[in-house]
Amino acid sequence: MGLLVVGSVAFDSVETPFGKADNVLGGSATYFSTAASYFTGVQLVAVVGNDFPDKHIQFLKRRKIDVRGLQRTKGRTFRWKGRYDFDLNQAHTLDTQLNVFASFNPQLPEAYTETEYVFLANIDPELQLEVLRQVKQPKLVACDTMNFWIERKPRELKKTLKHVDILTINEAEARQLAQESNLVRAAKRIMSFGPGIIIVKRGEYGALMFSDSSVFSAPAYPLESVFDPTGAGDSFAGGFMGYLASVDSTDESSIRQAIIVGSVMASFDVEDFSLNRLKKLNTADIEDRYNAFKQLTYFEDL
Amino acid sequence: MGLLVVGSVAFDSVETPFGKADNVLGGSATYFSTAASYFTGVQLVAVVGNDFPDKHIQFLKRRKIDVRGLQRTKGRTFRWKGRYDFDLNQAHTLDTQLNVFASFNPQLPEAYTETEYVFLANIDPELQLEVLRQVKQPKLVACDTMNFWIERKPRELKKTLKHVDILTINEAEARQLAQESNLVRAAKRIMSFGPGIIIVKRGEYGALMFSDSSVFSAPAYPLESVFDPTGAGDSFAGGFMGYLASVDSTDESSIRQAIIVGSVMASFDVEDFSLNRLKKLNTADIEDRYNAFKQLTYFEDL
Repeated sequence: MGLLVVGSVAFDSVETPFGKADNVLGGSATYFSTAASYFTGVQLVAVVGNDFPDKHIQFLKRRKIDVRGLQRTKGRTFRWKGRYDFDLNQAHTLDTQLNVFASFNPQLPEAYTETEYVFLANIDPELQLEVLRQVKQPKLVACDTMNFWIERKPRELKKTLKHVDILTINEAEARQLAQESNLVRAAKRIMSFGPGIIIVKRGEYGALMFSDSSVFSAPAYPLESVFDPTGAGDSFAGGFMGYLASVDSTDESSIRQAIIVGSVMASFDVEDFSLNRLKKLNTADIEDRYNAFKQLTYFEDL
Repeated sequence: MGLLVVGSVAFDSVETPFGKADNVLGGSATYFSTAASYFTGVQLVAVVGNDFPDKHIQFLKRRKIDVRGLQRTKGRTFRWKGRYDFDLNQAHTLDTQLNVFASFNPQLPEAYTETEYVFLANIDPELQLEVLRQVKQPKLVACDTMNFWIERKPRELKKTLKHVDILTINEAEARQLAQESNLVRAAKRIMSFGPGIIIVKRGEYGALMFSDSSVFSAPAYPLESVFDPTGAGDSFAGGFMGYLASVDSTDESSIRQAIIVGSVMASFDVEDFSLNRLKKLNTADIEDRYNAFKQLTYFEDL
């Protein structure tokens, strides 16, 4: 088993209608591995600059995240600056500084190459494929992407998708990738590119899972205060993959449970800036909210 | 028991990316009572002009809808013309001709005044209240409204809401009525105006029900072809109230089932123009889709 993630470790500066946070720990692989760490060991593949403080490394280690795959390179760490307005579903990017990420060449430590559960966070599809090539016999490969890659590297993305079992993707980007406005048909189209399962992320509207035999709808947890949506998608993926790796199962029942676990982790993530809420959870918090999702969706037969 | 609805009976002209329909039977009370008629008898209160063909009256009668409260007045029937683009959640009104609806003065036949389940479709809140005054001892009053009344008659609307148990309302309009962007807080705010239950309609994202003790999330049914969303909200309300009247219960378990029944009826409505799909359903169709909603949302405990 084991769970490997390749993605970004970053400093984020975020403004929302409810406050702001400057140069806080962020990045897709950070959110993913922190969320997943409540369920399983995580092997992290990413790059940071020599400005990356040791306290963050220590934090990851305390969460039992394997950082042997975290390269430290001369230069500055990846930085992202963004703003959310009252429509918290939509991030407005103000500034992106790739820095050391621009020349990232992911190399897996030998110990990582036997890993069975793999998540390719939203990075260049060529790098995603490069990581996949180094994993010997993955049991389940999930992948995320975004409009930037759909527009700039559609061919490379489709090449990567051939080797992917599950694609997680935002709703608008699913329509864009499939060039189809109806979501059911868009999901079918994307399945024809390779992945057997498409998980469409819909922000405050939850997630929809499509496979060739079924559809599953998961709500988002209705929160009275959504503080900062940054990292929600990666926290979702971390809970989702972390749960699947922990039960070592990819059957439909487990996939559905994993989608709810992912939704639980995303709902915690958005309650505070950066990893502030995600890093201080315990098992009871997670179980309680899972049960709240059960209550939220339950209805009797006719 | 019994179920009473006051609202519009209209001719609609609708264009969607998938086709168009001219001067077809529409109106909130028409959609509502057709959907509800699969579950219970319906008493209709509305007005039409002398251009309203007898075949439509015969159709309503065949569906066992009591039309003694359907006034026929000199003049033309209410007409609405609208367009939907690929974002089928948003109707663009091209033309509204109130015609006989402009001087509508709803008078309940004596036989209607004992009715226990009442739905006030989206009309002038003063008319809604006028109808309510004529009902002797309603057991459950539900009501719909829209931005037009929120903007033009906020005081009158709030006066009506004092006497309402359940408000069904679109998401954006819930935010507008409450003057609050967070939906959970918006629902609480609206509850303070009177209704103990708020059902927020979210189009292709389903519905959220808020009460003082719980929240329930119902998905929309993912359809490969949504043909025409006109009437979806009223079909939802018809299935919802029709089911509650048929089981004569307002407990939470029944409310949740009724929300799914409403979602089932809305999902059928959008599959064709006008009432084309709604009018040719049978019990098995409805039960099958209810079970499909169960399958769509089911996940195991952890």
